[in-house]
Amino acid sequence: MHYADALEERIRKTSPICVGLDPALKNLPEGITKDAAGTLEFSKGIIDAVKGTAAAVKPQLAYFEVLGWQGMKVFFEVCEYAKKQELIVIADGKRNDIGPTCEAYADAYLGAGSPIDALTVSPYLGSDSIKPFIARCEKNDKGIYILVKTSNPSSGELQDLPTGDEAVHEHLAQLVESWAASGLGQATNLSFVGAVTGATYSEELKYLRTLMPHVPFLLPGYGAQGAGARDCVPGFLAEHSTSSSWPRGKTGALVVAARSIIFASSGSDWREAAGKAAEKMAEELKKELKIKN
Amino acid sequence: MHYADALEERIRKTSPICVGLDPALKNLPEGITKDAAGTLEFSKGIIDAVKGTAAAVKPQLAYFEVLGWQGMKVFFEVCEYAKKQELIVIADGKRNDIGPTCEAYADAYLGAGSPIDALTVSPYLGSDSIKPFIARCEKNDKGIYILVKTSNPSSGELQDLPTGDEAVHEHLAQLVESWAASGLGQATNLSFVGAVTGATYSEELKYLRTLMPHVPFLLPGYGAQGAGARDCVPGFLAEHSTSSSWPRGKTGALVVAARSIIFASSGSDWREAAGKAAEKMAEELKKELKIKN
Repeated sequence: MHYADALEERIRKTSPICVGLDPALKNLPEGITKDAAGTLEFSKGIIDAVKGTAAAVKPQLAYFEVLGWQGMKVFFEVCEYAKKQELIVIADGKRNDIGPTCEAYADAYLGAGSPIDALTVSPYLGSDSIKPFIARCEKNDKGIYILVKTSNPSSGELQDLPTGDEAVHEHLAQLVESWAASGLGQATNLSFVGAVTGATYSEELKYLRTLMPHVPFLLPGYGAQGAGARDCVPGFLAEHSTSSSWPRGKTGALVVAARSIIFASSGSDWREAAGKAAEKMAEELKKELKIKN
Repeated sequence: MHYADALEERIRKTSPICVGLDPALKNLPEGITKDAAGTLEFSKGIIDAVKGTAAAVKPQLAYFEVLGWQGMKVFFEVCEYAKKQELIVIADGKRNDIGPTCEAYADAYLGAGSPIDALTVSPYLGSDSIKPFIARCEKNDKGIYILVKTSNPSSGELQDLPTGDEAVHEHLAQLVESWAASGLGQATNLSFVGAVTGATYSEELKYLRTLMPHVPFLLPGYGAQGAGARDCVPGFLAEHSTSSSWPRGKTGALVVAARSIIFASSGSDWREAAGKAAEKMAEELKKELKIKN
């Protein structure tokens, strides 16, 4: 099934929450060893705790790469495990390169048999660094999320530079919408080309939504980075433009929270605490988005 | 020793050549199995073939990641092997993230015991995504190369956007020079903060050199991508500004070639062919740079 349609189906069963799996060793809770094995145990525990509530998980590659090849082995095991629990799996790698090298990244994460559904991608190299990913999305029903406006304090240094009447990231947003146009899902009319748009810049989010009407958004910044449920609302769409059978409040985006869920407790009750934190976040979001279920 | 000083010392013993290790399975030569073991054998063979001629090797992470965790195991083995042969090892990962995640990437590749000397880094997230790398460079005598102006055809889509009187990448170049200023090597007066500046845009290279006088350049685009030795010259500095004991022609940059060296022959003579291709490239470069040795 097309990535955007599969994502929407999953969101309808759960909530528009994406749990960031950022298993930094130093933050691992009581009873978990600070190594690759502990990282696996912790990640699986979080997946079990949130699988009834969250649509997706977003394992962050850096925390696995820092453990060497043993960490990468665990990374793929975590992705397989999450996929088996019917979660959408978004690998946060912010990969970027050109030509055959870009194809190698695309095959590494978005190959036909991969447990990963989507990959985050960095845009500085231009369309040469995007098109090989798009080819895999098309062929293998995968997705990408291109960094457009990120949630961090220094994101404006390049992203907000004025160019003509707009900011660089607004110019990029229009490129992303054009790349998205060829890959729309039948049910959702949304593309397999998504965008990362930080929830910490809520005003800007509203404008970016108008620039990218066919683009699924991934909204980081909720929780530890300071954004609340209300800040995320402008990143959503009123409803699917072509699927009148699916009107259920706002849609078209995933809200990411990592630390505020996965490290909700550092004690032995970390599983329960993560599950509760995810449920609380889902409730808050659904209320703001007027989703009833 | 400071990264820029160590790099210069190595260049003086060899040449300003960096051999890109892009071991795409489909291109591996006769007698090499198309798997992780073959990738290791091939990479070691190339390292042996060029170690007398090249200052550095640049293993491209994508070609190892595409082989899963077994590929990552081989990646670190390749880096260890290259380091033992006294080559400067530049991991081409174009990594980028913020906060603790960026620190995890920095620790993954630029940790104290890492065989990797430098990492390529993508700049779209701004200084939040650079400073954690700089901290590791300072502490562990490592380096980074920030993508400024890349060698690919679509590089201009974001990088050349006009902002005020300059292009986005020229604005970035000034940021890079400012990040570089605090980390200068005693012998070279060059920083551990480097820049990727494509040799395929030779005119622009000349201007970028004036914007970043303290920044080591990594120049991709030689050979298969179309740039010749003469196109690379504007990326070099006249001589070290503060080390009158080291005048030996132009310096301050590495020229990257991958396919034109590592796949110089697809037959059983691939080692010899790679060695000869590297020697020919070194000769051409040294002539253009007026380096005598």
